Amino acid sequence: MGLKVHGLDDLDLQILDILIKDSRIPFLEIARTCHVSGGTIHVRMKKMEDMGIIKGTKLIIDNSKLGYDVCCFIGIYLDKAKSFNEALEQLQLVKEIVELHYTTGEYSIFVKVVCRNIADLQNLLMNKIQSIDGIQRTDTFISLFQPIDRNIDINILDT
Amino acid sequence: MGLKVHGLDDLDLQILDILIKDSRIPFLEIARTCHVSGGTIHVRMKKMEDMGIIKGTKLIIDNSKLGYDVCCFIGIYLDKAKSFNEALEQLQLVKEIVELHYTTGEYSIFVKVVCRNIADLQNLLMNKIQSIDGIQRTDTFISLFQPIDRNIDINILDT
Amino acid sequence: MGLKVHGLDDLDLQILDILIKDSRIPFLEIARTCHVSGGTIHVRMKKMEDMGIIKGTKLIIDNSKLGYDVCCFIGIYLDKAKSFNEALEQLQLVKEIVELHYTTGEYSIFVKVVCRNIADLQNLLMNKIQSIDGIQRTDTFISLFQPIDRNIDINILDT
Amino acid sequence: MGLKVHGLDDLDLQILDILIKDSRIPFLEIARTCHVSGGTIHVRMKKMEDMGIIKGTKLIIDNSKLGYDVCCFIGIYLDKAKSFNEALEQLQLVKEIVELHYTTGEYSIFVKVVCRNIADLQNLLMNKIQSIDGIQRTDTFISLFQPIDRNIDINILDT
Amino acid sequence: MGLKVHGLDDLDLQILDILIKDSRIPFLEIARTCHVSGGTIHVRMKKMEDMGIIKGTKLIIDNSKLGYDVCCFIGIYLDKAKSFNEALEQLQLVKEIVELHYTTGEYSIFVKVVCRNIADLQNLLMNKIQSIDGIQRTDTFISLFQPIDRNIDINILDT
Amino acid sequence: MGLKVHGLDDLDLQILDILIKDSRIPFLEIARTCHVSGGTIHVRMKKMEDMGIIKGTKLIIDNSKLGYDVCCFIGIYLDKAKSFNEALEQLQLVKEIVELHYTTGEYSIFVKVVCRNIADLQNLLMNKIQSIDGIQRTDTFISLFQPIDRNIDINILDT
Amino acid sequence: MGLKVHGLDDLDLQILDILIKDSRIPFLEIARTCHVSGGTIHVRMKKMEDMGIIKGTKLIIDNSKLGYDVCCFIGIYLDKAKSFNEALEQLQLVKEIVELHYTTGEYSIFVKVVCRNIADLQNLLMNKIQSIDGIQRTDTFISLFQPIDRNIDINILDT
Amino acid sequence: MGLKVHGLDDLDLQILDILIKDSRIPFLEIARTCHVSGGTIHVRMKKMEDMGIIKGTKLIIDNSKLGYDVCCFIGIYLDKAKSFNEALEQLQLVKEIVELHYTTGEYSIFVKVVCRNIADLQNLLMNKIQSIDGIQRTDTFISLFQPIDRNIDINILDT
Repeated sequence: MGLKVHGLDDLDLQILDILIKDSRIPFLEIARTCHVSGGTIHVRMKKMEDMGIIKGTKLIIDNSKLGYDVCCFIGIYLDKAKSFNEALEQLQLVKEIVELHYTTGEYSIFVKVVCRNIADLQNLLMNKIQSIDGIQRTDTFISLFQPIDRNIDINILDT
Repeated sequence: MGLKVHGLDDLDLQILDILIKDSRIPFLEIARTCHVSGGTIHVRMKKMEDMGIIKGTKLIIDNSKLGYDVCCFIGIYLDKAKSFNEALEQLQLVKEIVELHYTTGEYSIFVKVVCRNIADLQNLLMNKIQSIDGIQRTDTFISLFQPIDRNIDINILDT
Repeated sequence: MGLKVHGLDDLDLQILDILIKDSRIPFLEIARTCHVSGGTIHVRMKKMEDMGIIKGTKLIIDNSKLGYDVCCFIGIYLDKAKSFNEALEQLQLVKEIVELHYTTGEYSIFVKVVCRNIADLQNLLMNKIQSIDGIQRTDTFISLFQPIDRNIDINILDT
Repeated sequence: MGLKVHGLDDLDLQILDILIKDSRIPFLEIARTCHVSGGTIHVRMKKMEDMGIIKGTKLIIDNSKLGYDVCCFIGIYLDKAKSFNEALEQLQLVKEIVELHYTTGEYSIFVKVVCRNIADLQNLLMNKIQSIDGIQRTDTFISLFQPIDRNIDINILDT
Repeated sequence: MGLKVHGLDDLDLQILDILIKDSRIPFLEIARTCHVSGGTIHVRMKKMEDMGIIKGTKLIIDNSKLGYDVCCFIGIYLDKAKSFNEALEQLQLVKEIVELHYTTGEYSIFVKVVCRNIADLQNLLMNKIQSIDGIQRTDTFISLFQPIDRNIDINILDT
Repeated sequence: MGLKVHGLDDLDLQILDILIKDSRIPFLEIARTCHVSGGTIHVRMKKMEDMGIIKGTKLIIDNSKLGYDVCCFIGIYLDKAKSFNEALEQLQLVKEIVELHYTTGEYSIFVKVVCRNIADLQNLLMNKIQSIDGIQRTDTFISLFQPIDRNIDINILDT
Repeated sequence: MGLKVHGLDDLDLQILDILIKDSRIPFLEIARTCHVSGGTIHVRMKKMEDMGIIKGTKLIIDNSKLGYDVCCFIGIYLDKAKSFNEALEQLQLVKEIVELHYTTGEYSIFVKVVCRNIADLQNLLMNKIQSIDGIQRTDTFISLFQPIDRNIDINILDT
Repeated sequence: MGLKVHGLDDLDLQILDILIKDSRIPFLEIARTCHVSGGTIHVRMKKMEDMGIIKGTKLIIDNSKLGYDVCCFIGIYLDKAKSFNEALEQLQLVKEIVELHYTTGEYSIFVKVVCRNIADLQNLLMNKIQSIDGIQRTDTFISLFQPIDRNIDINILDT
């Protein structure tokens, strides 16, 4: 049995499933696949956008082809737990940070970073992250290889 | 000074920049913004796809609206370093794993997981991940809050 | 605003609140406090027992007065993550274990233990826990002092 | 051979044993089981209360049925070891903390927390615990599953 | 108020106190100090030896003067917790081990070692300790400087 | 081949060996064993004391018989590495500390403590050690069992 | 296939290879081996020096023969990540530090140190490194034995 | 006061000092500086080589100019401490390993590695190091920046 979401019917989920696989597929093609009119697709998309389920689309880029070779995770320790908000404000300005999480476990803050190379990472750590007041130390681990990078599968419960 | 990539000119980068912000913008609109013909946009897109820079598009979904409330990171320790390939093969089958990294640092494997709730996470850990041969133990940390989730900014060097 | 639980009204919550403070209060006294009949209390208690909210009562004992001076937490590492079920089966038989949790974080299993003294703890660790197949090592930390030991407060949201 | 406690005879221990199993059993029923008068039970209960062995009774509630789904342990690091008393005073006010221990091992303070959900836990950590002066950082591990939750067994030495 | 030990009177404790400071003081001198006969000292010593309080005497040697320059602590991890007894049997034969403890905390076994120099320590670790079956790894920390080395003070409660 | 120490001959080492086994053996008996005069023993003892090899004698006491049941090791972290001297000065005054080491590894200071019981240890940690300025946190591990406690063996190289 | 470096031909690499093995070989002997004139060797050396590839030569000394017996690695934690530059300035003055790295992982600074003996290391840590403002603590691990110490092999890709 | 080495006089140390700074300086120039004949320099060099103090010379190369951009340290954990010798034999064959230490602390083996880039490091770890039998896991930390790389200073005691 597949996913059940309050307010979505099977058609909604089918549309979602198609777009999750390729967000550039024209609405008319989706309509044909689902045996409904293009207008229906628009209505359903609008509904799912209004519900906040669909938040937009995103180009999938090969970062390393653009020269962004280094992806890493950085666990950040603060000098005081209550420095979180000020540190977050400064970290928002660091564009190489693509994800920032507040997690259980030993780190106060956990970030994912994409940058060009080792020299870039050194600059990022020394001059952009570690220079922020309230950051005591960081623990960086570099992704050497990423064999899985995919979306959640909305039919996940079927298997 | 902005990004320089061998084989890309300023028009390519401008197109990329527009699509990174919203991948559903029609090519004709991009063409108007860039003061070129729609055909030019198609040519450039094709080139960037052939170069492997653009790999596709992806719908941005609010996972928690679909009932996927728990995002976590799991550090996996193997009983032997050489068990990596067999473990990877099994982990490929676990659909809740959206990223899998081979990293420096203390973990043999580092994964990002999206699942529905705490009970789902328990099932995932006990029955899908820890039951894999060669996995000695795991260290899970849950994201309680994620204030940053964004793309790299290709004009990153300007700032 | 206080707690809202599906299927419970304010009277139910009031009864629960009284009994959480002292589970030996006679039903008639509860009835007087709530301005209802004793029969009503019985009906409501029965409902909350049937709903599985009330699972019984428990004497609060001063363990140290009975000679149980040592309370400690033990993090258990397994040699293989998949040994969990067999280890659990054996740990069920160790009566000094009063809580056993399957947790995120570095331990495979996390237990709370109450025993008489240091010699008892040594015997427990060496002869009852570490002798179990599949347990690689344990990490024990002893509670030297416990200034807080209390129930959750069902009016917790009011404050 | 069972438990020996200075000042308690076998009847006292039998009464204790019965009440540990179900604290709501009427005294007259206990009296019948033990072949003594109800008055004797009252006398013995009074004695054990005066000795501080019996401290009261406690309703056993299914926290998750009341919407308290998340049970976790939090290791707290202080910025200075001597901040313990001030931090304790503030932590007393955090109602979600049901146990607080001063332990050997790496944590300055070790607490058990019960709260409603992940969002509640985030609020608790950020706004109630980490905002306390003197707390440097916390290390949280969530109980995903708790297969053992029981009292100590006063006949523990028989086995 | 000083130490109270069941079966010892003030004279016993005074004798103990004198001998703890210098175990070679002649009994007659102790007798004079305590205003009793030499025979009384012999009787009391015999009693404390029979009670197992006094176990013998020990020369205090400057190990570094004999060429034993390196004092270190080694935390030992076993591959299985149940290998403790076999490992202990082998470790008994390693003469450089002057103390061996079974401790709470992360190590399975914790030893204190005295050896001649760094080369001796390497030999000890590689050929005598790590070659023992069941030992997975060791964590050594060297004492660079030891400013305190003394007995417990039996008047400890006076201060 | 046995131990070689600059300035000591075989007679010196033989005397040392005898006294290491039992420091109360009368000099005349040592003289008989070594086939030399009692005066020679005095001369050699004096020489070894002047060389600083023999520093005195020490009664071996069964601490637990005197009510000192808890032996533990405490790793101490300072807030600043340079606080070492001040912290040492305060720790000198804590009589329960029988050894204090400055070690390689993660602790700033490593101590061995002997105290009466768990309550005593709590008092020691909270009121005597953690109240010292400059101490950030401590990591205590308790010795549950100590199967080896012996002197170095000066014939160690023979085996 | 061997190493390819932009701007270097096979002759350059051959000269480099010879000198990497023994930097004191006379240029005329290199010339004979390579079947070119001595002047050519000079020209090529000059080019590689100008390119910054060859930075000089270095005597290989047996440190332990000069009395430098202890080689160790020290991980340094700073009290604030931003203290890096001031700490570095002071560490530059510590002559026993032969390498200083800014690394990923848990340490703020990672150094390699060569000193004479354990007493020297104690002095170095307490009086030269830990006395620096901004250094919170250090974690030292001593090299007991170093079976590999060699240059990179420029033909590394051939194998 | 400078370094004192048994068997070396001030002239030997002066020669050593000069060559430590630049190992390619012609002997005649050294002779002039020291006011002795060139033959004397040869005699002294020979003596220091025979004593094993001077072991050769080494070209100083800028690894990154040859495309070796990544320098890192790898802590290796073995599955059993006694696997050391077999693992060492295999690690000898890995040419990217320029140093291998047997150290105190948590790692069984500690190596320094120089390789070309992140992809090279991944290959090295997965296919050359982690594929070795007996290696359980590795902990890698990358040097992002190395501001100190120098020889020991033989006049170190003067300052």
